[in-house]
Amino acid sequence: MSAVAHTPALPGSSSASAPSLQPLLALVQEDMAAVNRLIVERMHSPVALIPQLAAHLIAAGGKRLRPLLTLAAARLCGYDGDRHVSLAACVEFIHTATLLHDDVVDESLLRRGQESANALFGNKASVLVGDFLFSRAFELMVADGSLKVLAILSRASAVIAEGEVAQLQIQNDLSTDEAAYLEVIRGKTAVLFEAAAQVGAVVAGRPEAEEHALARYGMALGTAFQLVDDALDYAASQEALGKTVGDDFREGKVTLPIILAYARGSDSERVFWRRCIEDLDQHDGDLAEAQQLLERHGAIADTIAAAERHRDDAVAALHVFADGAAKAALIEAVSFAVHRAH
Amino acid sequence: MSAVAHTPALPGSSSASAPSLQPLLALVQEDMAAVNRLIVERMHSPVALIPQLAAHLIAAGGKRLRPLLTLAAARLCGYDGDRHVSLAACVEFIHTATLLHDDVVDESLLRRGQESANALFGNKASVLVGDFLFSRAFELMVADGSLKVLAILSRASAVIAEGEVAQLQIQNDLSTDEAAYLEVIRGKTAVLFEAAAQVGAVVAGRPEAEEHALARYGMALGTAFQLVDDALDYAASQEALGKTVGDDFREGKVTLPIILAYARGSDSERVFWRRCIEDLDQHDGDLAEAQQLLERHGAIADTIAAAERHRDDAVAALHVFADGAAKAALIEAVSFAVHRAH
Repeated sequence: MSAVAHTPALPGSSSASAPSLQPLLALVQEDMAAVNRLIVERMHSPVALIPQLAAHLIAAGGKRLRPLLTLAAARLCGYDGDRHVSLAACVEFIHTATLLHDDVVDESLLRRGQESANALFGNKASVLVGDFLFSRAFELMVADGSLKVLAILSRASAVIAEGEVAQLQIQNDLSTDEAAYLEVIRGKTAVLFEAAAQVGAVVAGRPEAEEHALARYGMALGTAFQLVDDALDYAASQEALGKTVGDDFREGKVTLPIILAYARGSDSERVFWRRCIEDLDQHDGDLAEAQQLLERHGAIADTIAAAERHRDDAVAALHVFADGAAKAALIEAVSFAVHRAH
Repeated sequence: MSAVAHTPALPGSSSASAPSLQPLLALVQEDMAAVNRLIVERMHSPVALIPQLAAHLIAAGGKRLRPLLTLAAARLCGYDGDRHVSLAACVEFIHTATLLHDDVVDESLLRRGQESANALFGNKASVLVGDFLFSRAFELMVADGSLKVLAILSRASAVIAEGEVAQLQIQNDLSTDEAAYLEVIRGKTAVLFEAAAQVGAVVAGRPEAEEHALARYGMALGTAFQLVDDALDYAASQEALGKTVGDDFREGKVTLPIILAYARGSDSERVFWRRCIEDLDQHDGDLAEAQQLLERHGAIADTIAAAERHRDDAVAALHVFADGAAKAALIEAVSFAVHRAH
């Protein structure tokens, strides 16, 4: 844990104020700057459209939660080399590739509060630049040279794609139950959080117990994160969310709030849900009506409660590690992910 | 070369008849059956849409040229293990993923004479199942365990994506010259042929000279193959081509036949080309008019002549290998690729 001792003071970290990502950002600030430099460098290509689209993605920012996890997990494990920097970049490349492909799929008009890449550059470019980033991620992993890391991240990539296809299958299908939904968000979101955190332990050469603890932490954090995201799609203001409120509703995505409200709804409410979600026959006022039904049946509150259970599991997973700044920052990050909903 | 001695008799192989893929198919028949079994097995997923779409792709068949190259190159190098089988499957997975993404991009209605996957299953599924196959390819490579193979195929994947993006950029742009066009087809097609053949030498542990000879053979074969494809898009009957004749024209793709005819055309012909290719303002009879102009300026014949020069280079690359059934089959395969145009 010697690396932890060198952590700078953590501005903005206080148990009295709202939970924040700030301690995590401060913990790995220099490493994250190195990751950002590597991302820009490795997005270079003689084919001009690739760095153009890459620059758009970088400018769009985002929280970079996944590479932060890799860096912080390595720090928690006392790692003091520099392999975690290139592997954190790999994780972000894989995430960005899935975002690009997801935007094509969902025809989203907003991503992180800005026009999505596909709206600006076209679906064609988004698919192909996604493929480029994905390939580049594997080139970086090969240069790193760990078959174990390659195994973790290639498996994660396959599971993500399966999760996205599974999500396509449950779209517009109100017979989806909570278990099927959880399996989908595990695949499309939580598996990359799991892999990102696990890789931090792998580069540090830590025992399996610590590797598995970080994997479990990542999986629980990712699940909580997605549950809150799905709640916010109905509950947030568009400004706070950074994407269009009601996107999921308009696309007929079956998320936990809908599953709960449908299960608890009257016959006439179910007619409403089937028209909006299965037939995608939506009119002015339907979104507001949906939000009222979700509120009436406690569907948003219970989705947040589910996220809080996963938050608790994430925190419990870290008990194998000694207390310190890195552990505290990772714990606060989970609270931050869930607290967004309040 | 001991493995070559065990090659069965080669039905259909005769220098008097038209060149055929038959000797290559006969050479690696059993290995190819193993590859096909592995492909079916590794396309399995609990997410039903994935094996469904996979079954469609497998039923569509295709020549499986790229995995054939890996198998035949390994055979040429006297390899008698079984790693080449799973690596040939990787190569086919990568190829299939790019086809799926390419179909989305091009909005093609026909692929290998059948409805394309995206026409049947939708763009969304094609993008995501492509991602799944790509990830699965990397999982297979990781299981094989060679960082050298991983380096070759991850680099190839990145170059393919760059080539596809570059093709997007020259689309509808008649200022594209032959050099830029050759760079695009090198990326989008030939690099995977190069990697497929090279991997055969790598698993056999052959000296660099043989590895490079096979890489050069693959690059030249792939380039010849794409040149002929681009000629056939204007010259073939739809039945023989197995895809829609004139697809490239309708999409405004700038291929070598167009580059040559535009360079050699009169002012009024250039007005025609700009209207059709740059403005995509096309009417009945325009494709026939384009075909006549290509014929008048010898653009198809000269595209085939360029393919023949790459054929000769592919054959020359194999001079480091002793004569035998494997070498003869690989040479005949190049002639087959070019002869399709006659």
